Amino acid sequence: MTLQRLRLDLAYDGSAFAGWARQPDRRTIQGVVEDALATVLRLPVPPALTVAGRTDAGVHARGQVAHVDVPAEVWEPVTDSLVDRLAGILPSDVRVRRAAAASPGFDARFSALTRRYLYRVCDDPTGVDPLRRHDTLWYRRRLDVHRMNRAARELVGEHDFAAFCRRREGATTMRRVHELRWRRVTPDPSLPGHPAPAAAAEATVVADAFCHNMVRALVGALLAVGDGRRPVDWPGAVLRAGVRDPAVQVMPPHGLCLEEIRYPAEAELAVRAEETRRRRVPAD
Amino acid sequence: MTLQRLRLDLAYDGSAFAGWARQPDRRTIQGVVEDALATVLRLPVPPALTVAGRTDAGVHARGQVAHVDVPAEVWEPVTDSLVDRLAGILPSDVRVRRAAAASPGFDARFSALTRRYLYRVCDDPTGVDPLRRHDTLWYRRRLDVHRMNRAARELVGEHDFAAFCRRREGATTMRRVHELRWRRVTPDPSLPGHPAPAAAAEATVVADAFCHNMVRALVGALLAVGDGRRPVDWPGAVLRAGVRDPAVQVMPPHGLCLEEIRYPAEAELAVRAEETRRRRVPAD
Repeated sequence: MTLQRLRLDLAYDGSAFAGWARQPDRRTIQGVVEDALATVLRLPVPPALTVAGRTDAGVHARGQVAHVDVPAEVWEPVTDSLVDRLAGILPSDVRVRRAAAASPGFDARFSALTRRYLYRVCDDPTGVDPLRRHDTLWYRRRLDVHRMNRAARELVGEHDFAAFCRRREGATTMRRVHELRWRRVTPDPSLPGHPAPAAAAEATVVADAFCHNMVRALVGALLAVGDGRRPVDWPGAVLRAGVRDPAVQVMPPHGLCLEEIRYPAEAELAVRAEETRRRRVPAD
Repeated sequence: MTLQRLRLDLAYDGSAFAGWARQPDRRTIQGVVEDALATVLRLPVPPALTVAGRTDAGVHARGQVAHVDVPAEVWEPVTDSLVDRLAGILPSDVRVRRAAAASPGFDARFSALTRRYLYRVCDDPTGVDPLRRHDTLWYRRRLDVHRMNRAARELVGEHDFAAFCRRREGATTMRRVHELRWRRVTPDPSLPGHPAPAAAAEATVVADAFCHNMVRALVGALLAVGDGRRPVDWPGAVLRAGVRDPAVQVMPPHGLCLEEIRYPAEAELAVRAEETRRRRVPAD
C-alpha cells in the first residue's frame, strides 16, 4: 500500500478543547480532526496526525500545521473535495483551511523553521471588548509597551530558556528566539469615526521552537515590567539565572494564539527534518 | 430631588442575550445593566435606561449609547469610580466603557443624528475563523463586493424603506441612509508573513435611524446580488416596489454589530431631540 503524506493547515478556538493532543474521554483538537478524517476518508481507524505546535488546553491557532499519511487510493478521489467535506462535518470551533499532498521530505513538526505566536492583552480598566474576550487577557494594570520592548531585547537570540520552561529530563532548553515585540493595537484607520475601542496590546513571539509554557512565561515576565512592578532588566536577569523562577507568572492560555509555522523551500525540507531530529530538540 | 442625567457608552456580545429590551424572566442587556446600576448606586429600584439603538436578540454592540436619570446625590460620590465598579460586577459579555454626566439637552435616543452598523460575512468555503465565529456569518457562496456596492448605490438617500421593514401601524418607514458600503477585510499588513485568513467582507451601514430588521434585510438583498443569484438592480427595484418582499432574506443577527451613534454638538442636542420627537420618527 502506497502512503500519501498530506499537509493540513488548521485554525481553532481552543476554549472548549483540552489542548491539541488526543486523550481518552477528553475533547481535543487532534481527536476531533482525526475522527473527522476517518469519517470523510472512510478509514476503519483514525489516521494519526503529527503537528507542528502542540498547543495546551485553551490556546488557539490560526496557522497550525499538521501532517498525516493516508493510503494513496483513499486520497486520490477526494483531492478536490476533502477540505469542503471537512468544513461540512467539523464543529465550528475547528477549521481545516487547506489539505494538500505534502512536498517530498515534508514533516510538519521536524521540517519547521520557526513558530510564531501572538499573545493579546487588554489593559483598559473597563475591560475587554466582549467580542474579543475569548482570545484576549484582561490585565487590570496599565502597560507601558515601550518598557516591555526594552526588556524583551535581552531575551532575543539563542539562549538556555530553562528559567521560562518546565524542566523535562533529557531535553534541551536551548532555543533561538528570533523576535519578541509588543505593539499597541490601534483601531482601524479606515473608519475615522470609530469610537475608541478598549486599549489592547499584542506580543509577537517567533522562535525556532518553544518549550512547554515558554511563551506564556515570557509574557508574564514582560507584563511585570510593563506595569512597573519589575525593573526593565529583570526578565534578562531571570534568563541568565537559568533556573525556573517562581516570580515569573505563566499567563492564562486564552490570550495565546499560534499564528504561523514557517518551513524552508522544498529542497530543504528533508535536510531540515533530519537536522532537527539529530539535535534532539523537542520541536514544538 | 434633583436628577442627574448620565450618558453611558456600552459594548456587548449579544450571543447570550434576548436582545436589548428588558423582558421578564429573560436575560437582556437592559436588564443586566440596570440591575448592576441599582447595585452600585444602591438604588431600591433599577433606574430605567433609554437607549439609542434597541438591538435584537443576538445582535452585538461596540458603540451603544444610553442615558439614565439618577438622583444627583447618588451620582456625586461615584463620579470617578462608577465605571470601575461596573467593570467589576458586570458579566464579561457586557461592558460600560464610559459613564459621565450628560450634556444639557442630551437624549440618547432622540438627540442621535446617525447610527452606524457593521455586518460581517465570511464567504470562505472552509468556514469562519473560529475566533470570529460569534460575530461573523458564514456564507457558503463567493461574494462579489464590487457588484454589491453597485447595487447598494440605489439604496442610499432618503427613501421609504417599507420593503425592508416589518410594518408597524402609524409609524413612518421613511429613513435616510447616509452610507451603505462593502469592503473586503484584508489581513494586517504589518504582519507580512501572516497566512491568508478566511476571506471576509464587511458592510458599513449608516442612517439617521433604522426600522426593525432593516439592516439585516438590506444585507440579505445585497448578498443575493453578491453571489450572482439576483441582478444588480434588484435591491433598488424591491425598494421602489415599497412592499415587504418575501424574497428578501433577513440575515442572522450574529453578523451584526452596532458600532457608533453620532450626536450633534452640545448646543444642538435639545433642538435635535425636539425635532426628532415632532417628526414622530421611531428613532432606533
